[in-house]
Amino acid sequence: MGINEEQLKEIEEFRKNKQETVRPISPDLEEILYKPIPVLDHGFVRVVDYMGTDSSIVQAARVSYGSGTKKVNQDKGLIFYLLRHRHTTPFEMCEIKFHIKVPIFIARQWIRHRTANVNEYSARYSILGRDYYVPERNQVAAQSTINMQGREEVLNDAEAKKVMDLLHEDAKRCYENYEYMLNEDKEGNRKDESRSQLARELARMNLTLNYYTEWYWKIDLHNLLHFLKLRADSHAQYEIRVYAEAMLDIVKKWVPFTYEAFEQYVMNGEHISQKGVEILKRMINGEKVTQEDSGMSKREWGELMAIFDK
Amino acid sequence: MGINEEQLKEIEEFRKNKQETVRPISPDLEEILYKPIPVLDHGFVRVVDYMGTDSSIVQAARVSYGSGTKKVNQDKGLIFYLLRHRHTTPFEMCEIKFHIKVPIFIARQWIRHRTANVNEYSARYSILGRDYYVPERNQVAAQSTINMQGREEVLNDAEAKKVMDLLHEDAKRCYENYEYMLNEDKEGNRKDESRSQLARELARMNLTLNYYTEWYWKIDLHNLLHFLKLRADSHAQYEIRVYAEAMLDIVKKWVPFTYEAFEQYVMNGEHISQKGVEILKRMINGEKVTQEDSGMSKREWGELMAIFDK
Amino acid sequence: MGINEEQLKEIEEFRKNKQETVRPISPDLEEILYKPIPVLDHGFVRVVDYMGTDSSIVQAARVSYGSGTKKVNQDKGLIFYLLRHRHTTPFEMCEIKFHIKVPIFIARQWIRHRTANVNEYSARYSILGRDYYVPERNQVAAQSTINMQGREEVLNDAEAKKVMDLLHEDAKRCYENYEYMLNEDKEGNRKDESRSQLARELARMNLTLNYYTEWYWKIDLHNLLHFLKLRADSHAQYEIRVYAEAMLDIVKKWVPFTYEAFEQYVMNGEHISQKGVEILKRMINGEKVTQEDSGMSKREWGELMAIFDK
Amino acid sequence: MGINEEQLKEIEEFRKNKQETVRPISPDLEEILYKPIPVLDHGFVRVVDYMGTDSSIVQAARVSYGSGTKKVNQDKGLIFYLLRHRHTTPFEMCEIKFHIKVPIFIARQWIRHRTANVNEYSARYSILGRDYYVPERNQVAAQSTINMQGREEVLNDAEAKKVMDLLHEDAKRCYENYEYMLNEDKEGNRKDESRSQLARELARMNLTLNYYTEWYWKIDLHNLLHFLKLRADSHAQYEIRVYAEAMLDIVKKWVPFTYEAFEQYVMNGEHISQKGVEILKRMINGEKVTQEDSGMSKREWGELMAIFDK
Repeated sequence: MGINEEQLKEIEEFRKNKQETVRPISPDLEEILYKPIPVLDHGFVRVVDYMGTDSSIVQAARVSYGSGTKKVNQDKGLIFYLLRHRHTTPFEMCEIKFHIKVPIFIARQWIRHRTANVNEYSARYSILGRDYYVPERNQVAAQSTINMQGREEVLNDAEAKKVMDLLHEDAKRCYENYEYMLNEDKEGNRKDESRSQLARELARMNLTLNYYTEWYWKIDLHNLLHFLKLRADSHAQYEIRVYAEAMLDIVKKWVPFTYEAFEQYVMNGEHISQKGVEILKRMINGEKVTQEDSGMSKREWGELMAIFDK
Repeated sequence: MGINEEQLKEIEEFRKNKQETVRPISPDLEEILYKPIPVLDHGFVRVVDYMGTDSSIVQAARVSYGSGTKKVNQDKGLIFYLLRHRHTTPFEMCEIKFHIKVPIFIARQWIRHRTANVNEYSARYSILGRDYYVPERNQVAAQSTINMQGREEVLNDAEAKKVMDLLHEDAKRCYENYEYMLNEDKEGNRKDESRSQLARELARMNLTLNYYTEWYWKIDLHNLLHFLKLRADSHAQYEIRVYAEAMLDIVKKWVPFTYEAFEQYVMNGEHISQKGVEILKRMINGEKVTQEDSGMSKREWGELMAIFDK
Repeated sequence: MGINEEQLKEIEEFRKNKQETVRPISPDLEEILYKPIPVLDHGFVRVVDYMGTDSSIVQAARVSYGSGTKKVNQDKGLIFYLLRHRHTTPFEMCEIKFHIKVPIFIARQWIRHRTANVNEYSARYSILGRDYYVPERNQVAAQSTINMQGREEVLNDAEAKKVMDLLHEDAKRCYENYEYMLNEDKEGNRKDESRSQLARELARMNLTLNYYTEWYWKIDLHNLLHFLKLRADSHAQYEIRVYAEAMLDIVKKWVPFTYEAFEQYVMNGEHISQKGVEILKRMINGEKVTQEDSGMSKREWGELMAIFDK
Repeated sequence: MGINEEQLKEIEEFRKNKQETVRPISPDLEEILYKPIPVLDHGFVRVVDYMGTDSSIVQAARVSYGSGTKKVNQDKGLIFYLLRHRHTTPFEMCEIKFHIKVPIFIARQWIRHRTANVNEYSARYSILGRDYYVPERNQVAAQSTINMQGREEVLNDAEAKKVMDLLHEDAKRCYENYEYMLNEDKEGNRKDESRSQLARELARMNLTLNYYTEWYWKIDLHNLLHFLKLRADSHAQYEIRVYAEAMLDIVKKWVPFTYEAFEQYVMNGEHISQKGVEILKRMINGEKVTQEDSGMSKREWGELMAIFDK
């Protein structure tokens, strides 16, 4: 993982600094606060701060005076009700802040979610680290012929090796030339006194898109769930899905009732179209419906049947 | 203040519930957490949760691993640098949540700030309380003849009394008829069995705009400062300015370095136009500049001179 | 409708001013541009500008160079595909601007949609008009006993008349006192020279929530559809639903393919939970499922069965 | 420029398709609609749609019924007043849509502005073109020793050539390997039948950050001006500044009054801190002020003096 011993020690030190607060606490999230969760070959996700718990959602929904939590059962019921009916504003009352290390080509997908606050490591200002991503053997897969933006079966050993070798070679060579152009040693001094140091804001353009970047990423729970719905979906690119999955585990620790409701109504729920509802009505009534008399295109029919294992 | 004894007791109870956290703490803000700060005749502001401190801003700006705080002096310097140069994203890394009670006509100004999360008490769902706002004697002022959206000198005693009486009478009568239409007692039962109960979503339209509403309002520090810049300004309506001033005190407790920088660079700073800069250059060089040879309109010239006490 | 003869004439004049453009055109929307569509007793909606058409969505989805429209059939298919799979960003490429007149208590619901641009008539700056809303006879309905925020059967004649009378009386009296406090005639002069003129920003607080306000409201198509999904829904308050319905007609004229897809996949589509999908599978396979063995609460079961007319 | 003959012909064809509209028109912007403006070695900016003109801002500010334009002089005065006092909402009433081709490392800066709508060319779905950016000879500059994120003097011929050669070589080699891994000919068929085709979503990670991407980017005028303030600033990276400058020319054609006010009050205006105002007061009064008795740090004093050419 792309975090060194010294940083891990700093984190452990930091975790010892316990203080008293009258704010609501999420005990399970406190357990993992600051700790990096490894993702991909050099990436990680770690929670660096949070605000609110399940009870904060209840409290906002009731605009009540003290703690939102009166009876746990009622609170859970209310959270389920709110999410089932897409009353989403109370979920905006919780906030979480992550520190994330992620390959640039995935960071570019990620940043499209505009409702977060972001502070990214600046390669204009500092020198980017030497970590880059190369997929594991079993992720080196062929272009899907069905899904224009997906992958299919894994390449054979020889082909996969070739791909991995190329990715390694190009990433390394580009970094060497990046360092050459920067001409800067670890202390920030000129390495080769006979040469200039190219501006960092220029040199960085020579890096490949699999280099890792880092950022602080802060988002409210409602918008986080929307992000996770899209990015933990089976159609999402594997390299972002693994981050989303790590974050789902975090959400489960942080706001367990919300997590359960989210699984039930959003993550594993389905949109059914007007036509789809009509078709289901007929099927429930024992009618045999075929694609031909469904009024749906083959593709849409296939999507509907897949939901119901037909 | 529009918060009763029972609620205050509940808040005190709630404040006793101290727990340990490894998150950053703002000690001075912890002192006032949950406590209502009175504003206007029945309104209040109280902080119900927060995330981050001055050190979180520094940490995000540095995308660092442990605490942002290494040397207090350096941290303060960095915060001043960031705000002076309007590097605003690190200030988005702190978040605060308020519970606010405010007259509806002021809530309507307030809600125009779109970057916050809001849960408002619903008068479709529940019955609105009987608190309404009437200005204090010394705030009953005449329309300004200069500033189309401002007020001027205070009305004389007789006139002011008349205005206050009218406001009281109309607010009370409208509420009586609201209650009559609702026809509901405190237990939620029908008061007069011989009559129907008008839908709450309809009855509420009979209330005047000075009735108080309540909401949970959550916002990041950057956007809060923007709100405060506009609403604590001397041109803001008095009835929103008093809320902004109460919140400025809160910000001072929460993130003292940021508060100081905000006062210096934003709140008490000034925008000077291109022409303004040219004029100042001439004046600094000892030249006598008049409105006529300034290239500015009378109004703009007046605004510039006012900044420099001329 | 709350628009006078003079204003209608101005609008007709304005509509005659045809000019050439190379931008994409929505012919059916051009037909109604600027024309007010009456809503409620004094409100209206009118389109004052727009940008883009169905073809703009296609163009953005393809990041293409010329017009998005190559073959109409393919374009329609792509739009349906995009909306079915919630690829929403291309729908943000169309924008529309409305001028709306709406009662304040509805404007307060409306403004909760934060993704629009708004310029509202300012009662700090100007005097608000004398139009207020009173529901029609058949909308004066009792509080629902099932839905806390809904209404039920219409009141009887006597009761309804009483409600309407109260609303009229209170609105009128409040406006009279508003005018008295303002003490300003139509030319903006002092009416009664012996009295002061109360600041407009204060006097306005005496008006009831059914007074009409006006605003310019600009929004992109994706966010407009989200607004319409919520506000044209049968659970939305009648007084906002009628605005949403008027706007649905406008969307139909503006972007007919998108409108059709929206009806099919969003407006008349349904969310089904994970449990709901499992239950439907069993029912499709001929199994008799009851609430008791469904794993659902009575309420949730009732909601599911209602979708499929059971 | 990265647009071929065929595309230019398509654009010319498209421009001939003039239609009538009753919407407001910006004549000078119509002249350049769809036409690419070259930026950097292979990039461009072109306007593909717009909504509103200077008169729309006036109209929204007045919430008026017909055209905003009554007297041109008054309109200009109002626009200047609005911008001088940062009344920004009326500027949100104009919207513009660009098609932009830009190197990825600049696209990453650009996308940090979250208030725009974006549709980017997808390298998951399609194959990225072979255009990459290499700075011109006179832009190959050394790291600034003062400004951590800036550049300084241009490199000498030999060094600059070396940098440009490295950038060319690495970009080319990475693209060759990208193509090798994709194994796809122009018709979308497998090039080498004996080998698999790596998924596009994986292969793309081998490209360097100077490859060009393309997007549709739509934004309102207020947020565009904010973007231009930051990105046309002398401290912005050259490679984004040239895009901002091209867009400033576009704004000048589109909304000439707003452009003029923006130059006067925002682009060429200055923020002065509270201390700065105090110092200026003393200087205007003929006092000799030095850094030592200014209460400012050396750095801040230097920044203030630079504004006034001292």
